[in-house]
Parts: sequence; C-alpha cells; structure tokens
Amino acid sequence: MAGTDQTQTPRTGGPAIILIEPQMGENIGTAARAMLNCGLTDLRLVRPRDGWPNPRAVPTASGADAVLDQVRVFERTEDAIAGLTAVYATTARLRDQLKPVVTPRRAAEEMRAHHAVGTNCGILFGPERAGMTNDDVALADAVVNVPLNPAFSSLNLAQAVLLVSYEWFTAGDATPERQLSYEDDTPPATKDQLVNMFEHLEQALDARGFFRVPEKRPSMQRNIRAFLQRAQLSTQEVRTLHGIIVALSGLRKESGGE
Amino acid sequence: MAGTDQTQTPRTGGPAIILIEPQMGENIGTAARAMLNCGLTDLRLVRPRDGWPNPRAVPTASGADAVLDQVRVFERTEDAIAGLTAVYATTARLRDQLKPVVTPRRAAEEMRAHHAVGTNCGILFGPERAGMTNDDVALADAVVNVPLNPAFSSLNLAQAVLLVSYEWFTAGDATPERQLSYEDDTPPATKDQLVNMFEHLEQALDARGFFRVPEKRPSMQRNIRAFLQRAQLSTQEVRTLHGIIVALSGLRKESGGE
Repeated sequence: MAGTDQTQTPRTGGPAIILIEPQMGENIGTAARAMLNCGLTDLRLVRPRDGWPNPRAVPTASGADAVLDQVRVFERTEDAIAGLTAVYATTARLRDQLKPVVTPRRAAEEMRAHHAVGTNCGILFGPERAGMTNDDVALADAVVNVPLNPAFSSLNLAQAVLLVSYEWFTAGDATPERQLSYEDDTPPATKDQLVNMFEHLEQALDARGFFRVPEKRPSMQRNIRAFLQRAQLSTQEVRTLHGIIVALSGLRKESGGE
Repeated sequence: MAGTDQTQTPRTGGPAIILIEPQMGENIGTAARAMLNCGLTDLRLVRPRDGWPNPRAVPTASGADAVLDQVRVFERTEDAIAGLTAVYATTARLRDQLKPVVTPRRAAEEMRAHHAVGTNCGILFGPERAGMTNDDVALADAVVNVPLNPAFSSLNLAQAVLLVSYEWFTAGDATPERQLSYEDDTPPATKDQLVNMFEHLEQALDARGFFRVPEKRPSMQRNIRAFLQRAQLSTQEVRTLHGIIVALSGLRKESGGE
C-alpha cells in the first residue's frame, strides 16, 4: 500500500497529466506551463529519458513552478495511475483494442463528472515520436483523439497537453461567451437617452433638408435608428454624438435635450 | 485598388491569422503548424522583425509548407485586414475602448457564420511580449480573450494561435463526441447473443453452487448482467466469455449454445 498512497492523495488541481517516457526536458516544461494555464498542477512522469529534475524544463515552464515542484516520477505506468478511477490515453491509432474514442471536449465533461463525486482522473501521453505502446493504451478506459485536419494532424506533445487541459478548464468555466464591459462612469445608454439623441439628429437632418422625399422619411429614419441601436452606445458615446450633430449642423436639440 | 486585390482573393482555408510584428521566426513556424493542424492556411505578417522569408520558421513548421509558401507581408495592419469583413483582436487587456469581448468558442461560431455567407474574417495577434497597440485593437470588431487560470494566464504566441484555430476547426467538425468502433469482422453483440451468454454463465454458476441464498438470486443475476451489459461487448468478446466459462467450470451451455 505504501507505493500507492502518494497517488491517492486528494488533489484539487483537476486530472493528472501523465507523460510516458518524455524525451525532451523542454517539452516537459512547456507542458507544465500549458497545464498551469488551465489550472492543472498534477504532473507525473513515467521513466523520463533524462531523469528528474531536469534543468531544461525550467525556462520553457515560464514560471509554472507550482507544477514542476510537485512532479512525481514512476517506473511503471501502472504505478502512475494507481489511485485514479478513470484514465484516458491520447493516441491517434487504436490497434486491436475495442475502446471508446472520445473528443477532448467529451473527455473533459466526463472527467468533470468524476471530480464532482470526488474521484480522480488522469490522461496518458506517449513519447514524442514513438507514441504509446499497446500495453499502456490497454490501461486506459477510453482513448482521447483530437479532431484535426486529417491531412496534417500531428501535434507536438505540449500542444496536445494544452488542448486537453484547455477543454478541462473550459468545461468548468463560467465566462460569458460574449460581453460588452461598460465602465462604471459611463454605463450603457438608456432607451430615453437614445431616443433623445435620435430626435436631435432627425431635427438637424430636417433643418438641412436631408429627407427630400417625405414618403421615404419613415423607413430612412428606422434604418438610421437601427444601426445606431446596433452600436450598443454608452452614455458617454451618446453625449459625443450630440456634440457631433451640433458640430456638423450648428443646431442644438429644440426641446428635451440633455 | 491594386493594393487590396490580394486580400480580397476568396480563401477556402478559413479565417486569416495576422501576426503583428512577430519577433521570433520559430514562433511563426510553430503558429503555421498549429494553423494547418486546424485547416487554416492564410497567414499574414505585419512588419515581421527579421523580414520574410525567415529560415528559422521552417523547422518548427514541421512541414506546414502549404501555410509558409502563401504567407503575405504587410507594412500596416490596415492593409493586412483590407478585404475582411470581421476582425478579432487577441488581447488580455482592453484599455479605454468599449468593445465586445468574446471567448474563442464564440468567435469561432461568429466567424463560421460569416464564412457561411462567403465573407472573410481575420484574427490579430500582437508581438510576443509587448502585446497589441491600442490603435491595432481599435481596428477590430471584437476582442477574443481566452478564459484561463487567472493566476497564470500568459500563453505563448503559437499556443494562442493554436487555441483560436482549434476552436475554429471544432466548430465545423462533425466527429461524434464518443464512439466505439467495432471491427467489421467482429460487430457489436446482439441482445440474443448476450442473453445466451448470460444463461451459460448462470447455468455454470448454478452447477457450482454460486447462488447459495435463493431469494438473492434474482438481484445478483441482474447485477452481473448489468456490468456485462455496460461492457458493450463485441460478438468476438461474447465468444471469448463462453470460452472462459467453459475453461473455469468445465460446463458447456445446456441448450441453445453459441
């Protein structure tokens, strides 16, 4: 049991990233950086070619010390995954094994479900060139395959770690997909401020004879109001527009106004 | 018009990736590789520090010649975006500008909508360290901000290109999120093949006295059938299980059989 205790320590940093026989220290560092970018901290190495610690990993980690300082090294993949309840293997080919193949997005959802009930997951990455052995793939519950341009699908190790980690982070992230962040001192314009500005503009255009064909006036007015509405103006921008109208026409708004 | 003609050439490769003042040729190559991984081919450079072509980009591009060979170089960002109808700026900070901020996933959906009607989009990336200038950000319709670990959110240039390009690819990709690919010569087992195997197992267990408490037999049988169902067995795997039951018990199935 002593050998598995360390892998059963609860982790708050999401799934473990397990690099099997990584060759280049630089790649380990870049992978560590990508992990911490995505909030992952549990990096495990199986038989790293150049041993561990590896000074070549430090510059490319760009300060991801929280990951590098906690790296654990294992002799066998079986030991590296001992305390986990779900393991994914990242490999392009599945040879002679019937295993579910999932996208990184789906893997992230499944791992979030495991973590929600307090169990721990891991993702296996094979050596840079050779890829994973059949025996290591056999240890996994499912294979993660990144959908990419079929004519040019080879990712480097750190990029593969980044994409899988990014999907993990995104699956738990609540950032609004699209937002417009108005400043406190210039919030979004209210509808009465907008209508007031529309009327100022239309009075100035009337005064300058812009609406030459009376029957076209209503639709022209709607079209102008439409693009000004699409701009999602702030209060300050409405004030700026009043200033532009005055500057171009010399006419202040007749009634109401600011 | 001669100056903008080249940017108005229809492109099938998705949005343009526009690197403003990229410093390191290696990063340009890595970005080109990430682009082609995701099916993008239109790479534009604005004032690359070391000129173009740059031999240092070739090794890190790992064969993404389809991208490197078509690179176009511009003196001004305004020229690089001339033929485009929607432009996104990748920057962490939005200073004194009121602009929509979108996730890479949302940007990908919006760009897919533009491409569906035949118009072209582009994504601006600033220099490695300095980031984009306010004037370049001002050229964009919206800002793309990658949600990442707020305590460690700095991505390198090629990783940022990869994530944005990956979301573009994924938004148009139809790969099933989870699939189990049975071989042609050993398709998924049919329910009658499964029930036949369950009965073989239960006969063998009965013969060996496994079900000692008769009233528990139904629920035990259901539980065993449940985990065997979850395994989503192939026809070959059902045959293997028949063989295992015979090997362990010495008993063939009494009636029916395989």
